[in-house]
Amino acid sequence: MHINAERLKASMDQINEIEVTEEGGMNRLALTDSDKQARDLLKKWMEEAGLEVRIDDMGTMYGRRPGTDPNALPVCLGSHMDTQPNGGKYDGLLGVMGPLEVIRSLNDNNVHTKHPIEVINWTNEEGARFEPPLLASGVVAGIFESDWVYGLKSPEGKTYLEELQRIGYQGDRNNRLKNAKALVEMHIEQGPVMEADNQGVGVVKGILGITWLEITIKGEADHAGPSPMSLRHDALMAASKAIVGIRERILRHGDPVVATVGRITTSTSTINIIPGTVTFTLDIRHKDSGALDDLETEVNEVLEQVCQEEGTSFKINRLWNNSPTHFDETVVNTIGEAAKSVGLPDYRIISGAGHDAKYIAEIIPAGMIFVRSMGGKSHCPEELSSWDDIALGTEVLYESVLRLVK
Amino acid sequence: MHINAERLKASMDQINEIEVTEEGGMNRLALTDSDKQARDLLKKWMEEAGLEVRIDDMGTMYGRRPGTDPNALPVCLGSHMDTQPNGGKYDGLLGVMGPLEVIRSLNDNNVHTKHPIEVINWTNEEGARFEPPLLASGVVAGIFESDWVYGLKSPEGKTYLEELQRIGYQGDRNNRLKNAKALVEMHIEQGPVMEADNQGVGVVKGILGITWLEITIKGEADHAGPSPMSLRHDALMAASKAIVGIRERILRHGDPVVATVGRITTSTSTINIIPGTVTFTLDIRHKDSGALDDLETEVNEVLEQVCQEEGTSFKINRLWNNSPTHFDETVVNTIGEAAKSVGLPDYRIISGAGHDAKYIAEIIPAGMIFVRSMGGKSHCPEELSSWDDIALGTEVLYESVLRLVK
Repeated sequence: MHINAERLKASMDQINEIEVTEEGGMNRLALTDSDKQARDLLKKWMEEAGLEVRIDDMGTMYGRRPGTDPNALPVCLGSHMDTQPNGGKYDGLLGVMGPLEVIRSLNDNNVHTKHPIEVINWTNEEGARFEPPLLASGVVAGIFESDWVYGLKSPEGKTYLEELQRIGYQGDRNNRLKNAKALVEMHIEQGPVMEADNQGVGVVKGILGITWLEITIKGEADHAGPSPMSLRHDALMAASKAIVGIRERILRHGDPVVATVGRITTSTSTINIIPGTVTFTLDIRHKDSGALDDLETEVNEVLEQVCQEEGTSFKINRLWNNSPTHFDETVVNTIGEAAKSVGLPDYRIISGAGHDAKYIAEIIPAGMIFVRSMGGKSHCPEELSSWDDIALGTEVLYESVLRLVK
Repeated sequence: MHINAERLKASMDQINEIEVTEEGGMNRLALTDSDKQARDLLKKWMEEAGLEVRIDDMGTMYGRRPGTDPNALPVCLGSHMDTQPNGGKYDGLLGVMGPLEVIRSLNDNNVHTKHPIEVINWTNEEGARFEPPLLASGVVAGIFESDWVYGLKSPEGKTYLEELQRIGYQGDRNNRLKNAKALVEMHIEQGPVMEADNQGVGVVKGILGITWLEITIKGEADHAGPSPMSLRHDALMAASKAIVGIRERILRHGDPVVATVGRITTSTSTINIIPGTVTFTLDIRHKDSGALDDLETEVNEVLEQVCQEEGTSFKINRLWNNSPTHFDETVVNTIGEAAKSVGLPDYRIISGAGHDAKYIAEIIPAGMIFVRSMGGKSHCPEELSSWDDIALGTEVLYESVLRLVK
């Protein structure tokens, strides 16, 4: 192995001591004091590793290892250090500490490269404190306007800009990532597929497209006692039938299609009142844009049928739509070769979750490396990846970099 | 007609001017200033009608019209003047103003009775400000302890006792209703059955038994993207299947069985997180105690099957159980005869909703008169009963009283 797994573990452990919840979860929400502490440590370590540190206007941190050719485009490696509330130890952090370890190992091994290498820590990937997620990478990719992001408010009512300035991490717009030869993001899988397939490291081909719908079903609120079952227009009954019915339709398409109802609210919340209005969200993901549109049509069909049966009506509000990402073939194949070079199979996987690399892929050839999640858990204290898998993933990253800087 | 429908309407209208919401709803929550205003008017009208007014320790108001026999037990007529937030104009109020109109008409018609007649306004029937409902009638019937009721808190954190004292309606424990020859409560149906049956006035045989269950389904919270459908333990999916499945089972029993899920909450409420835990309530009602227990067993069976299919587990917490009420045969038959005496059919109905008469029936021979609800609506500004039906119902009450005081 070229990389030093012990050193990588030590650095991750140190960041993961910053703010620990009672349940043992991480609590480094974007632009909080804990985020600042993690950033300060990263900055120190970047400088100790000889990197030139710069901060952009969104607070994203870049540590640059110069190349031998001053005109060569950098190879970028990065993810994020912010977490969900009571989140895990690996989500995001691995994709910043892994690259730092690659740099340290290149230094140890006295490897000089033609292309510069940059380690990146994107701001507010999680979207837990400032919604939506992927804000800083989104600004760099031209998806969001920086002024709009600056004005977004945390649940406590603080703006992104206020908090960015408060922790002292507002840099210059000119420092943004503009162009690069390639970007590789290493991340934990956050799902159970690799464990089921008995694979420790994955070469990510792309990211599923996502559509978020908000579905409102309108029936009639009524008293639970004196309303015979046959005369009801129960919005929650219709919603329940729709939730079951939508899954039935989705399942016909097989993996990797997923559909999730994450939020459901009723207009009343009284034990003895039939809910008059119910709103629920639907998150549908598919690797193919056309299929995603078809799924939306099928959802509409299910709702039409259910609402006719239940004497209710519905309305669909499309909250968000994000096309599937197909990572750059050259970058993906390079990662696949790197995996084979360390004795692993070129195991390909599609990401169900969004990542900073998704947006960056719009402007720069990008790819991702996945590390197996034990139990498929993420965004919780139980989130776990083995140090063996982490070491292998980081070694694949090291080998990928050696190939990409050529 | 013996009663004066115009006068009844004028009194109801006057009470209904007290606190009107923007949507035209009533807002006389128990022990608020608006409740006090309504009480003050009632007290004045009771005194003007020659009634001896007394208040008990729960704030319940009694107006007594003496009988010719000082030892005879009273015939009691009453309901409540408190409302739900943004509630209707008839629920409760009709059952206090109707009896007042009966008294006024007896006075006009110079009718003297052997038995005293009492008009009652029970405190906090709705349970909207102090949970649970039927508090004052429950204390009189020995269901609740007065000290426990005194300590109950409104959503603003005020206790029942504090508010009772604040509005000046804490009376003496000795003033409680102790014994009576009969109690009749007139009330709007609050459901669509009488309208469907084309009946304006109903003779209420009894009240459905109620069981309130709180069902918690535990699955596993997971990220919406990277979790294949086949590996999920989605608590909301299981809950949705259970809600649909429970109705299917309930429907086999036919009317008048009803089951309602009024409240559903998820442990997470994030669009892209599979809910790990879902809790929902179930309100089941049946006219027969044994059948109600059977239904609970069937609910358990549905949950067992669904949770097995979905890889989830469940827990049932029985929040409340209230046996079915069978009103006193003599009182019910008397009301039926009274209905026939005014040219109406002796139309029998079972109440799906609870009423003060339910608790009082435990200690005193009781019965109820229902007045048709247009559109079956209640607890909302759209609540409506026609003045023709109200006049007829009140006339039936008058005729019932004449028979009961004999």
